[in-house]
Amino acid sequence: MSTDGGSLSTSTFGEGQIYSLEEIHRFIKDCVMAVETPENYAQIFASCLTEADYKGHYCEGLNKLVSYIDEIRQGGCNPSANPEILKESPVTAWVNGNNGLGVVVSNFCMNLAIKKAKDSGIGWVVAKGSNNFGIAGIYSVKALEEGLLGMSFTNGSPMVAPTRAMEGALGTNPISVAAPGLNGDSFVLDMATAAAAEGKIEMLSRKKMPVPIDWANPKTGALRPLGGHEPNSNYKGFGLAFFVEVICGILAGSAYGPNIRRYGNLGQIANLGHCFVAINPVYFAPGFEERLSDLLNFIRNMQPADPDKPVMVPGDREREHMATVDQEGGVHYCRDLIESCNNLAESLNVLPLSPLG
Amino acid sequence: MSTDGGSLSTSTFGEGQIYSLEEIHRFIKDCVMAVETPENYAQIFASCLTEADYKGHYCEGLNKLVSYIDEIRQGGCNPSANPEILKESPVTAWVNGNNGLGVVVSNFCMNLAIKKAKDSGIGWVVAKGSNNFGIAGIYSVKALEEGLLGMSFTNGSPMVAPTRAMEGALGTNPISVAAPGLNGDSFVLDMATAAAAEGKIEMLSRKKMPVPIDWANPKTGALRPLGGHEPNSNYKGFGLAFFVEVICGILAGSAYGPNIRRYGNLGQIANLGHCFVAINPVYFAPGFEERLSDLLNFIRNMQPADPDKPVMVPGDREREHMATVDQEGGVHYCRDLIESCNNLAESLNVLPLSPLG
Repeated sequence: MSTDGGSLSTSTFGEGQIYSLEEIHRFIKDCVMAVETPENYAQIFASCLTEADYKGHYCEGLNKLVSYIDEIRQGGCNPSANPEILKESPVTAWVNGNNGLGVVVSNFCMNLAIKKAKDSGIGWVVAKGSNNFGIAGIYSVKALEEGLLGMSFTNGSPMVAPTRAMEGALGTNPISVAAPGLNGDSFVLDMATAAAAEGKIEMLSRKKMPVPIDWANPKTGALRPLGGHEPNSNYKGFGLAFFVEVICGILAGSAYGPNIRRYGNLGQIANLGHCFVAINPVYFAPGFEERLSDLLNFIRNMQPADPDKPVMVPGDREREHMATVDQEGGVHYCRDLIESCNNLAESLNVLPLSPLG
Repeated sequence: MSTDGGSLSTSTFGEGQIYSLEEIHRFIKDCVMAVETPENYAQIFASCLTEADYKGHYCEGLNKLVSYIDEIRQGGCNPSANPEILKESPVTAWVNGNNGLGVVVSNFCMNLAIKKAKDSGIGWVVAKGSNNFGIAGIYSVKALEEGLLGMSFTNGSPMVAPTRAMEGALGTNPISVAAPGLNGDSFVLDMATAAAAEGKIEMLSRKKMPVPIDWANPKTGALRPLGGHEPNSNYKGFGLAFFVEVICGILAGSAYGPNIRRYGNLGQIANLGHCFVAINPVYFAPGFEERLSDLLNFIRNMQPADPDKPVMVPGDREREHMATVDQEGGVHYCRDLIESCNNLAESLNVLPLSPLG
């Protein structure tokens, strides 16, 4: 249900064989078309999941495919549904996703926000009736590619405990912000408001490694908000998660907080809420891109505490990962994931994923 | 230069005598008028500082008065300057604060954002050429009082170290978001994106208490971003501080990041950047206030890990503090602060602060 603030985090699916991005895209598209997703929507869906792995946000890439397919098969999501605009002004829109694919609803909304920002300075679009949208950074970057500031947010299944509470009541509610610098450089923040996204904790469990006490409550398993514990200001992480819920579920009239289905209840309708914002810098001070690049480069060139760990800015980790993928010709996946994809391929009568060389 | 995420923090100026809000307001207004601030601006200034103490954000209330007066005397700020609109559309504005009082510039900008949101759904206003604006929550709450969602942000002197860096490059860059619930209830987040605002650290130093290693680098004194250290995701706090700089300094064309004057250089022009947003919920799904109140109350009623520490939502701590002030008839200040105010009163030839009863 969430992306994670991977700007300086590392995640890998191990040292398995390499799969090209084209082949990953082909496989995901075939699988989702096999459960009656129209081709144009399957194309968007495959691009979003492939992009997540390309950027190194493995929790939200191929790793989630099996659960997306299960959700469609169990009737939790209708992959052929079309999003519709319920209310609109030159700078705002309220959209009903009609329980379609989250990535389809979100692409629709962000395109609308971009158009409004180009025409009128700002685009602020919220959706109800949606589903998991993958990584938040995909949508903010769409605005960036048009020379705009982009922001995207979503609510999700309740798994983060408010400060002092035992149980989860909010999603990992990610925040993504992207802004253009000079010559293709950019600022791209994509972070869960939890201390750690649930995908990271799933991966630790898979590796039989202990979960840090600052990431989850050992008694209930509820995730901690950013900050970890109260003396380390976790009420700020909780406040940010609540803020995201305000501009998603509360503003869009979707399910919200504890009313959202529990994580993994794939047959139940999720009715998630998202928020997408595009801002046209031309409406403000000239020289936006120059100033942003100057700040990005100043920070990259700062003296690090540890000479082996250079200072990075949000987006650098993903750029580094994409460069590695480009160099190696594709993405490494661990055997465990490939086995589950092979089982999926068999059950859907789809050509399995084929490694490079 | 910053507010702090006081939603669950406690801060007090000790067990000294009690001063009524009216007397605090009178004293602040007299002092700032004594350094040639026009009465209408002195009124706004005194209201903002008094409000900070009323809410329990003592770092930004009377505590900062001496440094504001020093700044005006040293020519760092022109208290009679009027803000002006440089560029405007139905939903956006770019304002030059002309080096006026930060609270005056910010009131002007938030009023403009509110008007735009009422007329056209959204108001997005940024300012350059401004100064310290006190607590961010004052401006977001102005929108809330008009039935709107409000947000306010500012950059500040470089004192927060990016993840892995030794020295500070960004301000404590606060985020405030306020949203209306039913019957006067509300969500009010007001947080620094640093692990702890510099005011909290100043107070520890004043009390000769050690500063936690997760709050500041012991070698350089640079503040840590929210999260504290890298394994606890402090790159998210750094990313949020950078985001605030993007929509303040970078968007408004003010000074930004390391170009802002160092903390305490009161004679130098600060040229701060702020951002104010108002959103009209009427343009989205009906029932905003009902949903928000439902979520606020659900969370307040959750089972706490410690029965003596009830679960609270952002804004509850301030409400609690304001109720105490109302009950006691005013605010407690410590002797140290009152002494510095008495010295100020003498040097300005102003009637000193007079305690209750």
